[in-house]
Amino acid sequence: MTLTVRLGDRTYDVVIERGCLRRAGELLNLNRKVLVVTDSGVPAEYAKTVADQCREPVLVTFEQGEKSKNVQTWMTLLDQLVEAGFTRGDCVVAVGGGVAGDMSGFAAAAYLRGIDFYNIPTTLLSQIDSSVGGKVAVDYKGYKNIVGAFHQPKRVLVDPEVLKTLDSRQISAGMAEAVKMALIGDEELFELFERGEAFDRVEEVIYRSLKAKALVVEQDETEGGLRRVLNFGHTVGHAVETVSGYSLLHGECVALGMLPMVSDPIRKRLSAVLESLNLPTFYRGDCDEIISAMAHDKKRDGKDITVVRCNQVGSFEFCTVPFDELANEMKEVF
Amino acid sequence: MTLTVRLGDRTYDVVIERGCLRRAGELLNLNRKVLVVTDSGVPAEYAKTVADQCREPVLVTFEQGEKSKNVQTWMTLLDQLVEAGFTRGDCVVAVGGGVAGDMSGFAAAAYLRGIDFYNIPTTLLSQIDSSVGGKVAVDYKGYKNIVGAFHQPKRVLVDPEVLKTLDSRQISAGMAEAVKMALIGDEELFELFERGEAFDRVEEVIYRSLKAKALVVEQDETEGGLRRVLNFGHTVGHAVETVSGYSLLHGECVALGMLPMVSDPIRKRLSAVLESLNLPTFYRGDCDEIISAMAHDKKRDGKDITVVRCNQVGSFEFCTVPFDELANEMKEVF
Repeated sequence: MTLTVRLGDRTYDVVIERGCLRRAGELLNLNRKVLVVTDSGVPAEYAKTVADQCREPVLVTFEQGEKSKNVQTWMTLLDQLVEAGFTRGDCVVAVGGGVAGDMSGFAAAAYLRGIDFYNIPTTLLSQIDSSVGGKVAVDYKGYKNIVGAFHQPKRVLVDPEVLKTLDSRQISAGMAEAVKMALIGDEELFELFERGEAFDRVEEVIYRSLKAKALVVEQDETEGGLRRVLNFGHTVGHAVETVSGYSLLHGECVALGMLPMVSDPIRKRLSAVLESLNLPTFYRGDCDEIISAMAHDKKRDGKDITVVRCNQVGSFEFCTVPFDELANEMKEVF
Repeated sequence: MTLTVRLGDRTYDVVIERGCLRRAGELLNLNRKVLVVTDSGVPAEYAKTVADQCREPVLVTFEQGEKSKNVQTWMTLLDQLVEAGFTRGDCVVAVGGGVAGDMSGFAAAAYLRGIDFYNIPTTLLSQIDSSVGGKVAVDYKGYKNIVGAFHQPKRVLVDPEVLKTLDSRQISAGMAEAVKMALIGDEELFELFERGEAFDRVEEVIYRSLKAKALVVEQDETEGGLRRVLNFGHTVGHAVETVSGYSLLHGECVALGMLPMVSDPIRKRLSAVLESLNLPTFYRGDCDEIISAMAHDKKRDGKDITVVRCNQVGSFEFCTVPFDELANEMKEVF
């Protein structure tokens, strides 16, 4: 399956195909210098499979985890590009999860003011979430993604075969982003989740989620307005992630973060879906701590906060509410 | 005079007007948090005049000179943005020369993946050269502008009054970029230089140069092809700049760099114009050193080098020539 993300002269394809990692040399232009970026949590064979298909590969493996997603690691990627004499005609390929994609995408965005970037996401979360959209960034001074760019990939390869090496908790966390896209943009996909078919029909889940996301991104590439709908579940989710000290996975936090943004009967339906996916449905932490982390979030704007709510499956609305009201809603759920 | 640079939804105006610095509050939206960035070489009153017109100014003054244009100084600008809690609705204003504009423009480009940027260039060089185009960057590992972005300003204010505090050597260096634009794109402007009217008609020189540059940038915003014409004089110029250890000003190096790119009778006409502007017409350094610095330049591509030549005033062509041939031409001139 191929999904085309239509963004004028930045239009690109997402190829979703079992085994496409082994066909990277056919599907991408690797007949040049290629910085292949991966992390220590990704099976080394994946990046090696890609590097073996490049004319001049330079392989970089950074330490796995969000803590690597910083300006220092980004600069080590720039060092490699400079030292190996990469020109504007060369490229960067990420082979890994969201951290690898975000950080190497930002290196590709900034080096020589932008060189080609290919993304080969290897976690379900990154296949569903970061393979469409072109948001690349690093964390800085305790803020997530605060330094970055919009830099669309030239092509994305999604190989569902790589998911076989992913543990089940990671798979579930990835599904949370698909549930998010279903709730705000694809009722049929939500029903597929309710029928318990998601694990068996993972390619369809990926394709439908990306399609729903692409429809949003095509209308608002640089997050001027509409695109903020993709933050559904993330306002609270990011705060939970911070407060949990990253002991919860991003997808697990998004799962939790969606609950205060819906009311019954959708909340009951969502809880049932999350449980069927082995995702958390309540958090025993301190709500006030989460509220305070949210106030620290980059999207803050005075005492009020703008959130995305879902009052009907497959649709959404933006609501600006006082922090306190949101806090009450959270206390009800958590 | 106002020049509109037409780049779709990134279209912006350059206002060229005596005294417009004092009208910044009317001409720009400063009713928000504003990072006002200047350097120690710019009269402090200019940035203060702007800051006084902002609702919430944060003033940063870095040390003057190309050596400040690095990732570290850029990070100190990000620090200010983070610490003062700048949001997507806030902005950055550069008040200074090309270094201030390039570095603060890149901070605005990367912070939250891009916030509004206004440029108030205060040297003739930056008024003529960097106020149109959106190229922002810092130097890294000895390479000029190797890390950056294309980030168009929201508006540019060019106040010719500020030139009264600029020394004559800086004025001449700025004129070199105008001579460049004249040679490759505006024959009438070149004739204005030949008549010795440039210093008396500086606003017209700025306007015509920017207009010629805008025509190029509008056709090729991200330097995919045509825009490289703006490198006329820069391939050799950058190398001279490096080899001279920055004892020569950028514009002086561009003046020298143009000479090997033209032949008689244009070379004679160009020499006469450069002399009338008190710009250098020969360099007593080692040509081989310059050639070797050029090989190190980011635009290298094997043994050959692509340069821009001017065989008729007001027009240009791209030529790919062996390094050796270019070296011979340089030895003839220098």
